[in-house]
Amino acid sequence: MEKFKVTFHPDNKTIEVAKDTTILTAAVSAGIYINSNCGGDGVCGRCKVIIKSGKVITQPTGIITLEEKKKNIYLACLSVIQSDLEVEIPQESRLSLEGLTPQEIHARIKEIYSDAEEVEPAKARIGKDIFTYSPLTTKLYLALPKPDLNDKVSDLERLYRQISRSQDIPVLHTGLSNIRQLGELLRDADWKVTVTLGKREGATEVVLVEPGDTSARNFGFSFDIGTTTISGQLVNLNTKEIIGTKATYNKQITFGSDVITRIIYAREQEGLEKLHLAVIDCMNQIIQELTEEHKIDLNDVASLVAAGNTTMIHLLLCIDPTHIRKEPYVSTSNFTPTIRASEIGVRINPRGLLACVPGVASYVGGDVTSGVLSCGLDRESELGVLIDIGTNGEIVLGDREFLISCAASAGPAFEGSGVSSGMRAAIGAIQKVKIDTRHLEVHYETIGSVKPRGICGSGYIDIISGMLKAGLLDKSGKIKDVSHKRIRDAEFGKEFVVAFKEENGASSDIVISEADIENIKRAKAAIYSATACLIRHMKLDFKEVKKIFIAGGFGTYLDVDNAVNIGLLPDVERKRFIFVGNSSLAGARQMLLSYEALEKAAEIARKITYFELSIEPGYMEEYMAALFFPHTDLLRFPGVKYSNHN
Amino acid sequence: MEKFKVTFHPDNKTIEVAKDTTILTAAVSAGIYINSNCGGDGVCGRCKVIIKSGKVITQPTGIITLEEKKKNIYLACLSVIQSDLEVEIPQESRLSLEGLTPQEIHARIKEIYSDAEEVEPAKARIGKDIFTYSPLTTKLYLALPKPDLNDKVSDLERLYRQISRSQDIPVLHTGLSNIRQLGELLRDADWKVTVTLGKREGATEVVLVEPGDTSARNFGFSFDIGTTTISGQLVNLNTKEIIGTKATYNKQITFGSDVITRIIYAREQEGLEKLHLAVIDCMNQIIQELTEEHKIDLNDVASLVAAGNTTMIHLLLCIDPTHIRKEPYVSTSNFTPTIRASEIGVRINPRGLLACVPGVASYVGGDVTSGVLSCGLDRESELGVLIDIGTNGEIVLGDREFLISCAASAGPAFEGSGVSSGMRAAIGAIQKVKIDTRHLEVHYETIGSVKPRGICGSGYIDIISGMLKAGLLDKSGKIKDVSHKRIRDAEFGKEFVVAFKEENGASSDIVISEADIENIKRAKAAIYSATACLIRHMKLDFKEVKKIFIAGGFGTYLDVDNAVNIGLLPDVERKRFIFVGNSSLAGARQMLLSYEALEKAAEIARKITYFELSIEPGYMEEYMAALFFPHTDLLRFPGVKYSNHN
Repeated sequence: MEKFKVTFHPDNKTIEVAKDTTILTAAVSAGIYINSNCGGDGVCGRCKVIIKSGKVITQPTGIITLEEKKKNIYLACLSVIQSDLEVEIPQESRLSLEGLTPQEIHARIKEIYSDAEEVEPAKARIGKDIFTYSPLTTKLYLALPKPDLNDKVSDLERLYRQISRSQDIPVLHTGLSNIRQLGELLRDADWKVTVTLGKREGATEVVLVEPGDTSARNFGFSFDIGTTTISGQLVNLNTKEIIGTKATYNKQITFGSDVITRIIYAREQEGLEKLHLAVIDCMNQIIQELTEEHKIDLNDVASLVAAGNTTMIHLLLCIDPTHIRKEPYVSTSNFTPTIRASEIGVRINPRGLLACVPGVASYVGGDVTSGVLSCGLDRESELGVLIDIGTNGEIVLGDREFLISCAASAGPAFEGSGVSSGMRAAIGAIQKVKIDTRHLEVHYETIGSVKPRGICGSGYIDIISGMLKAGLLDKSGKIKDVSHKRIRDAEFGKEFVVAFKEENGASSDIVISEADIENIKRAKAAIYSATACLIRHMKLDFKEVKKIFIAGGFGTYLDVDNAVNIGLLPDVERKRFIFVGNSSLAGARQMLLSYEALEKAAEIARKITYFELSIEPGYMEEYMAALFFPHTDLLRFPGVKYSNHN
Repeated sequence: MEKFKVTFHPDNKTIEVAKDTTILTAAVSAGIYINSNCGGDGVCGRCKVIIKSGKVITQPTGIITLEEKKKNIYLACLSVIQSDLEVEIPQESRLSLEGLTPQEIHARIKEIYSDAEEVEPAKARIGKDIFTYSPLTTKLYLALPKPDLNDKVSDLERLYRQISRSQDIPVLHTGLSNIRQLGELLRDADWKVTVTLGKREGATEVVLVEPGDTSARNFGFSFDIGTTTISGQLVNLNTKEIIGTKATYNKQITFGSDVITRIIYAREQEGLEKLHLAVIDCMNQIIQELTEEHKIDLNDVASLVAAGNTTMIHLLLCIDPTHIRKEPYVSTSNFTPTIRASEIGVRINPRGLLACVPGVASYVGGDVTSGVLSCGLDRESELGVLIDIGTNGEIVLGDREFLISCAASAGPAFEGSGVSSGMRAAIGAIQKVKIDTRHLEVHYETIGSVKPRGICGSGYIDIISGMLKAGLLDKSGKIKDVSHKRIRDAEFGKEFVVAFKEENGASSDIVISEADIENIKRAKAAIYSATACLIRHMKLDFKEVKKIFIAGGFGTYLDVDNAVNIGLLPDVERKRFIFVGNSSLAGARQMLLSYEALEKAAEIARKITYFELSIEPGYMEEYMAALFFPHTDLLRFPGVKYSNHN
């Protein structure tokens, strides 16, 4: 097979690939992350690259303009390599953290996510008084009585006997590999050993036997497997202390930015395996970096709890997710067995246990169960609602008596996808915006305080709210005909310039178009109307909802007033809103530290009724009515007032 | 590495081996079984071969006489190959079934063992009334309701739900491999599937999911893993019918004939692995032949129960048995977990379950537990004793109130090892002998009714009893100075010719020497005195023992009168003796068909007290007193009368 050398710039990374490989695949192999929201279908136009030298065969596409063609710009996904190649990957085509060293990326992400952790009120609820401390794996040091002619019980039964003497345990068992090494190990260790006990399917097993007293070294990981971001937390299981938290992009992004694209990709040849390996790779990266930084031996990590949406958990375990997106939208498993981490290639102690948080339904996964557990919705005496805002918005309504959930397909706009200058909430994203009502001056803050590279969800909310307040938008989201340098005609309708290219040094202005506003409007309408519909379905009213927990992508920053202003959140007393940040990760940590919490999560998952919005009469009307700013029914938003710009 | 061709005659099998390989190893590689009681140490002298051409290097040994040297006779274990070789393996050096085709061997063994099965009274005790029918794996056909928008429970939970609707089951779980194929399988099978449910550690797991209705095809194997013989039985788990029984030599014999030799060999480089693979190989052979003969798909075999002594079970599971033979004689595990057959390479359905019968102690294994279960000693209202005669004799005394056991090192004489013309109870073995008191004519029967090739245990009992009755032996076992062609002087003491070489066409007479008698005497003394000691330890008397179950190597034939006559069995009413044949295999089958029986076996194993003979005061005296025919204390054998030959 013919092979060619491909060099990527400005990274200056060279890789050898077979003839007919796409540039996108070559880039991934070289460890370079290119945007590819459509999963390589040549549709999203986000993977533009410049070919400096060499030959490719490409497919005709309307996404590349004639002008771009002249500049040797190609779609990486559609162009197959025919010779040695020199390729430049422009900043806009890169996943937004690219260009930084891994250390820098992690430093920055840590910065962002440590903020998120700090604002996380779910933390305040983790305490001895809520769940009994009983980690997924515990260590127990044992000095066994040596066998003699009067005490000839076998090695394994001797071990079990001593464990039973130390604590009250239901069923004990272990695997052959432990038994095979037991005879020598016990004698070499002079009968002084440490056992790691793990809980699986309601029983207790001996996960490990180690010589000597290693009971002081007992660590675990909790993980939130997000569609966009994977976050992991290293926890000292003895002290409950969080040793470190790291997050990384989910490498699956290369195969599509939302779960539907990935489910489709999973049917490609080796698609499922690639998606599976991508998430495992991310987890191993976080595990390796955190354990190395904190000088912890991987063998001392024997448990991991992962929360994620149903598709993410299927991909994590390499289970085909196809049927999640086919009517009647049934997943293969919402309750997956606790397995050995090594079964799926997660690199902790090879005999270590890995549990996934049980999910409710195909579009209400274990991340939601985990969120409910950690915000304590299921323990509330007063009515509350948890709104997890993401590409798929999940809403849970209830209290200690009942829990009901639904999912709304909000689209990826709040995550910066499908919008012209959109980007994820990462370094360089405009996340906080104020528009001066009189002069239309725009004041913004970016994540990491660097030059702006795009707009993330919270930025869009602020901008639209600001435009509404300034009277630049009509109720339907059309930009009014105002004479100002920031407002101009574009190919389809008008656009508003948030940051001129002079400010950011990029090749184009950062703008919000009428199409973008339409996308955000649909997203906010989907979430608001789903919440409203769920509440109405239960014959309740927003006024009766005492606590509104907001979770998800807005963990870092969200202006509640602006969110109410655009009609995303209901117009109720602001003190009812509680930000819970990454509630999924917080819940997974609770389950890592308490088997009771893990069992509670199963109970919660079973308790939550799944309410199918799409077949609910009146949902469409509710949704249509929400397709205005703030809403068709202004009585629902009595506090919202927009001015008219003149 | 230099390689040579070695051809074995009369088999005419050629194999290529590396320089310096022993002839013994080469023969094993060629699939030829050579006697090797000492495990290749050059001690037993049973692996003599004739080198027809070629060069070997051998070690000096007194076992090869000058005359043999002249005939180019060498010990296969001590001779390493230096050139291409032509080797003849005489009949005496072969494991006794060799020379027959595999079909013939199996036909003969089946013949022998089907006899054994028929006399097996344990069978009569297998019935619905004793243990609830609940096989280790059951099949259940399910027509699942198809999912729709009102019934969106996930595939796996749908399966579990339907199982729970069909039967009351405690905990359900399954492995990732089943979950991974579930989505497609259920849909392809139009939601009509058969689940195989297996029991492990007190819980129920889904072992298999198959499309359509396969519930009629549900099979299992029970196995007795003996030191010498491995017996397997294919059972229809739906009808409880025994489809077929096969036995084969334990290939481990090549590495030593008793457990101690094998435990020592296990410490050699790759010794443990070789022993492990040898037993797995035997099991796979039986499994393959029985399933092929009865046209049963290996995938329809999803469970196996194995009984064996503690060392055999360690080797089966590849657990180092070293500490079994080191004071204080502690095994690594008497209660081993139920595993997947594929974990140890046993070829049934790869997800099929394999359970080992729990054992009591290092020298009282699961075969004894299984024997107690199948003869029902633990359910008796009257006092009984189970005597399992083998290289290691095991004795269990008790009733439904108590059970106590001990083990006596009888040596391999009753199995035909360590005695000059001895052989195992296989084709050609003299098993039944009458000596005409007056003319000293010898009438014998051989197993398979072929020409005699040696003497097995029951033959030795009959011969010694006959010689005692004929007045040819004194009490201590010395051959009297009688003038008869059958009695002659040998190298060490006298010998008695059982069959002249003219009768058998072999190269030498079949004889019993004074040394042989001494060996048998020690063996019978060990078993008798152990039994007596155990009974006395419990402050009981033989008269109080109402049932005496005899199990083990004498499954095919044993003359009770003669066994009493030589002092092996106590002189009590003959009707108290009950032959139970291979009670270990019968018990394993019960456990295969009833999980209750398997749980009962664990209870029995726990209930049996292990009594250490070697530290019991008075045991040595008891043993010494039994080193006479029938015993020093003739009052114990009032019915035994020998005549004096004149």
